[in-house]
Amino acid sequence: MQASNPIGIFDSGIGGMTVARAINQILPYENLIYFGDTAHLPYGDKSAESIRAYALGITQFLLQKQCKIIVIACNSASTAAYEDVFNFVGNKALVLNVIDPIVEFINLNYSNIQIGLIGTKQTINSKTYEKKITSLNKNINLKSLATPLLAHLIEEGFYHNKISKEVIEEYLSNQELEGIQSLILGCTHYPLIKNEIAEFYNHRLDILDSANIVAEKLKLILKENNLENTSSNYFDNQFYVSDYTKSFEESTKVFFGEKIKLEHYPLWK
Amino acid sequence: MQASNPIGIFDSGIGGMTVARAINQILPYENLIYFGDTAHLPYGDKSAESIRAYALGITQFLLQKQCKIIVIACNSASTAAYEDVFNFVGNKALVLNVIDPIVEFINLNYSNIQIGLIGTKQTINSKTYEKKITSLNKNINLKSLATPLLAHLIEEGFYHNKISKEVIEEYLSNQELEGIQSLILGCTHYPLIKNEIAEFYNHRLDILDSANIVAEKLKLILKENNLENTSSNYFDNQFYVSDYTKSFEESTKVFFGEKIKLEHYPLWK
Repeated sequence: MQASNPIGIFDSGIGGMTVARAINQILPYENLIYFGDTAHLPYGDKSAESIRAYALGITQFLLQKQCKIIVIACNSASTAAYEDVFNFVGNKALVLNVIDPIVEFINLNYSNIQIGLIGTKQTINSKTYEKKITSLNKNINLKSLATPLLAHLIEEGFYHNKISKEVIEEYLSNQELEGIQSLILGCTHYPLIKNEIAEFYNHRLDILDSANIVAEKLKLILKENNLENTSSNYFDNQFYVSDYTKSFEESTKVFFGEKIKLEHYPLWK
Repeated sequence: MQASNPIGIFDSGIGGMTVARAINQILPYENLIYFGDTAHLPYGDKSAESIRAYALGITQFLLQKQCKIIVIACNSASTAAYEDVFNFVGNKALVLNVIDPIVEFINLNYSNIQIGLIGTKQTINSKTYEKKITSLNKNINLKSLATPLLAHLIEEGFYHNKISKEVIEEYLSNQELEGIQSLILGCTHYPLIKNEIAEFYNHRLDILDSANIVAEKLKLILKENNLENTSSNYFDNQFYVSDYTKSFEESTKVFFGEKIKLEHYPLWK
């Protein structure tokens, strides 16, 4: 593991670019290698077993690229595959998922409270957040709801409009989320609708999205491990996808903030 | 090829069950083997190259099951992979896609008209319908629009409600579809919202969905080829998926009309 080595980031598709973007902003001197598993996107509907197999294949690719740390920028993969990836990587690199930084943030900032969680079916059904938050022993009650349509809405450009407003209202009015005082956005697509969600609650709730919290945690980890890139070894960030379509490339603007050239890497052929 | 052999049907997921259901109703004495490639669902966002590879893998599976005919119950796969599947199958079985029966229906029933088409990005961008309809020389102008959110809405249960009504309105009001006198539902999910679409047009438009037209065509093909099952070789229909989740199984009720037991067959492992 060398400080000049790149940071590997992966997701089922391009949603994880919200995390990559936050990392790029907070750590502009780091080299990023992003892998979007667009051949299997979305992970939110897939079984845990399949997600684990995909995550290990991608991790192997990122290790070949000599990444010093692997960021699982997807909640579904973080719940289903984090331990497998961690064990597989061993001491070859560090591993960061998108859930632990949120749980740590909650531990530092909350107690005796009801917190909501929204995300894919995979993320919600796994109960990963619930188990981790319960084990904090801070008397925090997690109320969670699968909101699978939201990621699709965002991907198809239906947000910041009447339709996304109504879908958000429909989901967040669900009695499963009644009485929450804070809400975790448990999907890396959701930072794009954070404002709309905040508006639903008249800005009276803390809305926790993983992008910035994960990027800040990553910065801290690199510092603690003397792995910040201070060398002049700097290349353009690289973005790979397991299946290429023009439409994915066009969507990068939305998620990463600028249009990205995607490299087709057929990992599963 | 024997008349007592089963009919193979495949789709990226469970949407193609609308076609399987129509086939089951029209041909109750046939044995059906359905394969839903849920590991790669949805095909509508995938590249043509990937869809071709998946379609050939599934076709091989259905040939091993001795299917006498293979029905590609997915528009994205029919546009991307029909010729490859047809060539691969050779004289081992017959092959039917979901597009040609619609084109044939149009040829018999229309001329000098503007017809609309909605479907996935893959289906629309391929221009398969356009080429086939143009070659009819019936002075038919096809006006098409990708409506990728619709399949997701249906899968997540957002239909027959205010939200689906608004999404349908938003898509169908698009000027790309202005002046059409008939509309092709170019995705096997869409029969479930056929009534809502008809209502948008105040029931003044012919709405063509592939499920029944394909099932009728299949009946005719079997008859012409002496392949109708008149034997007592009758087993329960079989439904396989390449990735299994409970949520897929629950959705079968919506698409097939009754809850189906899904068999996990990890074709890609």
